[in-house]
Amino acid sequence: MSVNFAGCNSVLITGASRGLGLQMVKHLVGISERPKKIICTARNPASAQELQQIARSHPEVYVVPLDVVNDASIEAAVQQVSGIVGPSGVNCLINNAGILIHSDLNSETREGMMKTFESNTVSPLFVTKAFLPLLRAAAAGAVCDEGVMSVNRAAVINISSLLGSVELNRGEFAAMKVYAYRVSKAGLNMVTRCLAVDLQNDGILCTVVHPGWVQTDMGGKQAPLTPEQSISSLLAVVCALSEKDHGQFLDYEGKTLPW
Amino acid sequence: MSVNFAGCNSVLITGASRGLGLQMVKHLVGISERPKKIICTARNPASAQELQQIARSHPEVYVVPLDVVNDASIEAAVQQVSGIVGPSGVNCLINNAGILIHSDLNSETREGMMKTFESNTVSPLFVTKAFLPLLRAAAAGAVCDEGVMSVNRAAVINISSLLGSVELNRGEFAAMKVYAYRVSKAGLNMVTRCLAVDLQNDGILCTVVHPGWVQTDMGGKQAPLTPEQSISSLLAVVCALSEKDHGQFLDYEGKTLPW
Repeated sequence: MSVNFAGCNSVLITGASRGLGLQMVKHLVGISERPKKIICTARNPASAQELQQIARSHPEVYVVPLDVVNDASIEAAVQQVSGIVGPSGVNCLINNAGILIHSDLNSETREGMMKTFESNTVSPLFVTKAFLPLLRAAAAGAVCDEGVMSVNRAAVINISSLLGSVELNRGEFAAMKVYAYRVSKAGLNMVTRCLAVDLQNDGILCTVVHPGWVQTDMGGKQAPLTPEQSISSLLAVVCALSEKDHGQFLDYEGKTLPW
Repeated sequence: MSVNFAGCNSVLITGASRGLGLQMVKHLVGISERPKKIICTARNPASAQELQQIARSHPEVYVVPLDVVNDASIEAAVQQVSGIVGPSGVNCLINNAGILIHSDLNSETREGMMKTFESNTVSPLFVTKAFLPLLRAAAAGAVCDEGVMSVNRAAVINISSLLGSVELNRGEFAAMKVYAYRVSKAGLNMVTRCLAVDLQNDGILCTVVHPGWVQTDMGGKQAPLTPEQSISSLLAVVCALSEKDHGQFLDYEGKTLPW
């Protein structure tokens, strides 16, 4: 499978200053069939040096400040992005920003649960709500057939985790405790399914994906996948999404995961 | 199926001042095979008049103040309950307290999401953590075989909802939007599964249940089930739980629900 965003005017990636978000940007600027505009958000763009360097040499890359837990910051980002994309809107919103606090039953705190939930579950919902006018503009203005769902028309892609699968929280998969993280991703899976129900009639595809266990600051060095391996495969899956994947949970190889 | 808690020293029910929690108390005091001690918590016992009335005529009923979102209140409740149950501990903790804020995609707020999550997801975890010494005492002291799991030995029963099933959030079941509530119950399902993994070796049964759609303040008058119908069936299911139900999601008729 190849990564082909040739029909896509704009992709927006949150949390693009490092980890998987940064890798998505790196991958997209390196292919010929890339989106016309790649909008990268970071909580603090001034300190996102690698991202800024990419933007300097790639005019299709825009860096926009966005703190996903701050509604005023979200509103400011929507205004700025609206000016960048114009009436064609945003085709593909990738809610990638998220946090992981290592914890187990003994060390888990209310504060850790609440903070992780706000970042990983509540914020993707409120970012999506705020960008809905731009997503709807993209869905309505797309040249493809009305019934067709794809990232080239309009899509919300939420980056979740296998650790958010209640069903798979058993046996070897149960070794990682991380209550707060698991609960936040199970919650994000539910948010995605709720959005899939509500945005169906707008033609906005909603899918939640597991990028694999990746060698990032979050995944640690012992992870089996490099960021390149994860993201090249994940973006190929994302490009190929269609109606049948609406409201589904897929891994980076396109395999359906149980909730 | 009958409701038989004859082998059970103590049951603790949170949120017992009204709704399903109160109905559990009413049902238990009306049967001969009831737990020796029925501990009922309420945020504000002074205003829980019906519960207080039951306690006055049933010496096996104890009313304990507990605000599940307040850690100091939880600690005080653990102290008080410890004095009531003594070294035999708490056999069955029923995390029933919870809230529902009606909402949809447009009306949902961050505050509503956070508040519902704290009450319905985080608090059952922290109540369970705080009562673990009493649950472990019950599990260790039970007369039944070591390998056996049951509510007569030690159990955490979390009251969830079919609305917390991501899989079932489709078609007719998707009519109720309530993002905050759905996400909180999906999160509670994950909490239960995490607890099932961690408490397996303690012999503490962890199961999450859906009581049905019930005519309570929360469920509304149009609900198909009376509190009596729901709770008589649900308690019979709870009584019959064993190892095979550890970490599972069951409805009030004992049917396994998908996550």
